[in-house]
Amino acid sequence: MTERAAEEMNRPPVFGKEKKLGGYNMDKVVRIKMGASPEYTIETMGDYAGLGGRALTSKVIVKEVPPLCHPLGIENKLVIAPGLLSGSAAAISGRLSVGCKSPLTGGIKESNAGGQAAQVLARIGIGGIIIEGEADPGKLYTLVFKKDQVSIVSADHLKGLGNYATVEKLIAEYGEKPAYMSIGQAGEMKLAAASIACTDIELRPTRHCGRGGVGAVMGAKGVKALVFDDTDCPVRKPADLEKFKAANKVFINGIKSHPVSGEGLPAFGTNVLANVINEAGGFPTNNFKMGQFPNVAKISGETQAETETSRGGLATHGCHRGCVIQCSGTYVDKNGKYVTKQPEYETVWAHGPNCGIDDLDAIAQMDRMDDDFGLDTIEMGATIAVAMDAGLAEFGDAEGAIKLLKEVGAGTPLGRILGSGAAVTAKAFGIERAPVVKGQAMPAYDPRPIQGIGVTYATTPMGADHTAGYAIATNILKVGGFVDPLKPQGQIELSRNLQIATAAIDATGMCLFIAFPILDQPETFQALIDLLNAFYDLKLTADDVTALGKSILTDERNFNKAAGFTKAHDRLPMYFKREKLPPHNATFDVTDEELDQVFNW
Amino acid sequence: MTERAAEEMNRPPVFGKEKKLGGYNMDKVVRIKMGASPEYTIETMGDYAGLGGRALTSKVIVKEVPPLCHPLGIENKLVIAPGLLSGSAAAISGRLSVGCKSPLTGGIKESNAGGQAAQVLARIGIGGIIIEGEADPGKLYTLVFKKDQVSIVSADHLKGLGNYATVEKLIAEYGEKPAYMSIGQAGEMKLAAASIACTDIELRPTRHCGRGGVGAVMGAKGVKALVFDDTDCPVRKPADLEKFKAANKVFINGIKSHPVSGEGLPAFGTNVLANVINEAGGFPTNNFKMGQFPNVAKISGETQAETETSRGGLATHGCHRGCVIQCSGTYVDKNGKYVTKQPEYETVWAHGPNCGIDDLDAIAQMDRMDDDFGLDTIEMGATIAVAMDAGLAEFGDAEGAIKLLKEVGAGTPLGRILGSGAAVTAKAFGIERAPVVKGQAMPAYDPRPIQGIGVTYATTPMGADHTAGYAIATNILKVGGFVDPLKPQGQIELSRNLQIATAAIDATGMCLFIAFPILDQPETFQALIDLLNAFYDLKLTADDVTALGKSILTDERNFNKAAGFTKAHDRLPMYFKREKLPPHNATFDVTDEELDQVFNW
Repeated sequence: MTERAAEEMNRPPVFGKEKKLGGYNMDKVVRIKMGASPEYTIETMGDYAGLGGRALTSKVIVKEVPPLCHPLGIENKLVIAPGLLSGSAAAISGRLSVGCKSPLTGGIKESNAGGQAAQVLARIGIGGIIIEGEADPGKLYTLVFKKDQVSIVSADHLKGLGNYATVEKLIAEYGEKPAYMSIGQAGEMKLAAASIACTDIELRPTRHCGRGGVGAVMGAKGVKALVFDDTDCPVRKPADLEKFKAANKVFINGIKSHPVSGEGLPAFGTNVLANVINEAGGFPTNNFKMGQFPNVAKISGETQAETETSRGGLATHGCHRGCVIQCSGTYVDKNGKYVTKQPEYETVWAHGPNCGIDDLDAIAQMDRMDDDFGLDTIEMGATIAVAMDAGLAEFGDAEGAIKLLKEVGAGTPLGRILGSGAAVTAKAFGIERAPVVKGQAMPAYDPRPIQGIGVTYATTPMGADHTAGYAIATNILKVGGFVDPLKPQGQIELSRNLQIATAAIDATGMCLFIAFPILDQPETFQALIDLLNAFYDLKLTADDVTALGKSILTDERNFNKAAGFTKAHDRLPMYFKREKLPPHNATFDVTDEELDQVFNW
Repeated sequence: MTERAAEEMNRPPVFGKEKKLGGYNMDKVVRIKMGASPEYTIETMGDYAGLGGRALTSKVIVKEVPPLCHPLGIENKLVIAPGLLSGSAAAISGRLSVGCKSPLTGGIKESNAGGQAAQVLARIGIGGIIIEGEADPGKLYTLVFKKDQVSIVSADHLKGLGNYATVEKLIAEYGEKPAYMSIGQAGEMKLAAASIACTDIELRPTRHCGRGGVGAVMGAKGVKALVFDDTDCPVRKPADLEKFKAANKVFINGIKSHPVSGEGLPAFGTNVLANVINEAGGFPTNNFKMGQFPNVAKISGETQAETETSRGGLATHGCHRGCVIQCSGTYVDKNGKYVTKQPEYETVWAHGPNCGIDDLDAIAQMDRMDDDFGLDTIEMGATIAVAMDAGLAEFGDAEGAIKLLKEVGAGTPLGRILGSGAAVTAKAFGIERAPVVKGQAMPAYDPRPIQGIGVTYATTPMGADHTAGYAIATNILKVGGFVDPLKPQGQIELSRNLQIATAAIDATGMCLFIAFPILDQPETFQALIDLLNAFYDLKLTADDVTALGKSILTDERNFNKAAGFTKAHDRLPMYFKREKLPPHNATFDVTDEELDQVFNW
């Protein structure tokens, strides 16, 4: 414990029924109450037993948060949960879920990140952290979790720092062993596009719970950072080690043998999609005005990987321990100096083609700025494109875009507009064309020529979100079959099944990219079930996994309904039905009546 | 016709079934289609026959506007309608209704103003104007209505002008006979707090359709101004002149004999309420943090009237021809020079005590600025108070408040935040305490010690709006009986009955202040019914009036439901249940279940 931590620990912690953290079993909830005298309790999982990741965060929000509360108010809660298999030896099980009522959408939110946090948190034995209450005005705190020890220490010295500087100072205090979570300036300002950063293996704050403004809720609680130190906490032990090992082997083989997760993603990262989606005519360009970007070759994954490797960066890299896909990378400048992690496909798109920009270095710089300020790259790219429509910069003007992004970090009035996301920016500038659903910006796939993803955007409880039901897999990549992306037929069933499967995967801590082999290889799907059964001594079947997914979605839909959401919110903005997107001149043709069938299972 | 108008008239108008306006009968709809080639048709009332004011605007929105459209998009419409008795000799029948889907609330909107527009428009014979389509980018138009003549002329020379300068130029073109409607900079910028100005008897743009951002919709249609010239159009003739005259006499006597409409309002204007509401502890001070303002004596109606008369202004004045209450006035500076019309109670409150400001001259200056930029005074005062909570100025800092308001007119980024209203401002600055319902700011009555008005704020389809069901009458002024303002009992029924009555009154063109005598004097209520019957040769009863009110509210609720509103939207922000308002330390105690009964009639 550092001196600072020791000082703050004068105030004795409050224990609940349990006085110790849970060790291997990830069977404790730590409840932190922020306010003038922050305190915590350690509790058994209670009603949350058997839940992990998104299943846990959504259940806590449904049970404990009044749906009509203000997202930045005392009644909202921030819930952090590793997945059921996080911290184990299961491959790529390091996804972390963060839940709350979203300041961006006004509905329930689960925002999901890679990085080290989930693995480390799980090994400390914590199934969930629930942060309640509200900020002690003007004060910030760091929450520190170690083996059998929780402490709440002042973070006033971190005030106003970006995520990079924050983590640098935390490393000086807590060393290189922990995983860190933090907010930058955007979260402190409680901006609706604020993210929460998680450090990667190299302790860089590059993996973000990006969507929905979860960083603003952390800021509203007065929490600047979390430190997870799993010293003396070994890998979590499965109930049946042999079965677990066997299942893991099959699982890894499946991932490595699939062309997407075994070849495309490792070689070029997620940005391998740029050429693919552009070819399909669904690559939103200039604020969703065209479906193809003429200069795609300058920003494609192939070009990006080539740029990285030729400069001494890395094109293949994992964001957390145990990753067998390695879709990440390291982007370096012309002198080989680290700039940022390899920007993801959605980031390249958001700060690139969606703003008419074809400069990978500028895109990387904006990715770095987003990570540092603590902002969702998708929301910011969509927002800057709206600002370009409002005349604040020209499409294609990389310097102009960077200047706009700087405003956000600086907290100027213009920055506060932009940092509040695409919907607020459109409102402030009197623009109709905000590509949002439930207040959240659409990602890098136009829903007109790729109608399946449009169904997901419209109907997921999360607001426009590709990860909630990645119809691109089947519409474009022909994984799990093929549904013609240009036609409305079959899209409802596709999105429904993907949303159910995704919700379940998000409970396991597994990276969503396992969906590719799982959809195509029955044995890999079975291996995932076997991993869960071997770890927890269960007898789950595929039907149980489906039931879990449905149960999570039902919880989330119920929360949203009580928060005032209706089928009217399960719609794309009207201009997607009116404006034809070249080159296919497609409009979104799935009917409202069809959209209302997504959750009729 | 001016040369400019003549030039533009090269394009022939498009006639519908009807080729002429309606003369006395106010039985035509003029439909204007904006776009690259603006055109118009003249139609019979058709489905809208027998409707006026709010009954007509809401019916058109329900029938013709897709509930899920974007308020600034091509599918929204702006509807302008005089009341059923407007343009007749009936006393105070000069209220105008403007309807649309609101950019502020996302629901249906009827925004209502005095001034001359309704009387003149009705005499031209127009029952309603429906403005459709969208702006021709970069171009602005003026719509001119005369006896049997409609023209659409360029208003590019008015671009960027405030309402005062706009009207000055229009008078130079069209003379002193017409009534004018216009938008200022705020409407051109399509800001959600933008109003539409109507000129008063002295041709000053001081009477505003203020609430809900109707000015932004006019801006989105590319309409800068409307000119109504009733030259050669005499007063509208009732079917039975003698009965009409007799009813009008009883009606006028009733108004003049009631202590509120006959004494308080004429003597001191609406701001006579400042002392009354302050005394009741429901005068929201410093962004709804206290219920009494220590310096109320400096800004009360009594002080205001004294200031006006001592400087050579006017404390008693009508906003339109035929007003027998004369609640308005003229505010002049220390040198006797005109500043603005006498600021209303809600304006004095908004720019005064709600921002901790006790300077009537500063308040009058802000009223003038709002009128000139074309902004809702209530929304702007509420917004500046939120900005003060965010630290942008100190409570009580009049110069700071004026500076913030200037930003709106200048269209700076900060101004665009503020001009988007209290909810957006709170979002941009990460503030929970935005006193809004359905996105619209609460007016000058705290709902905690005056629970009846809280029921109206929560449940009216309009967003927080005192005029939709003015429970102050019975909670505080003891008009129409008495319901204890501090207790939840009886408030549902009170608000329900007032909302029904108000919707009906808003259809007649009558000023809402007739509600005071009508609630207390059965013969005055009967006289109103007699006026309608004598004018239109009808046999309406009190039940028919109630049915009309219910029918309007049902239309509006249906629109909102289809736009995605649920009972979750019929709620006050949660902090009104949590924070106790001194001096009564009251919270809002009407339960959610009770609120859901308002429209169960």
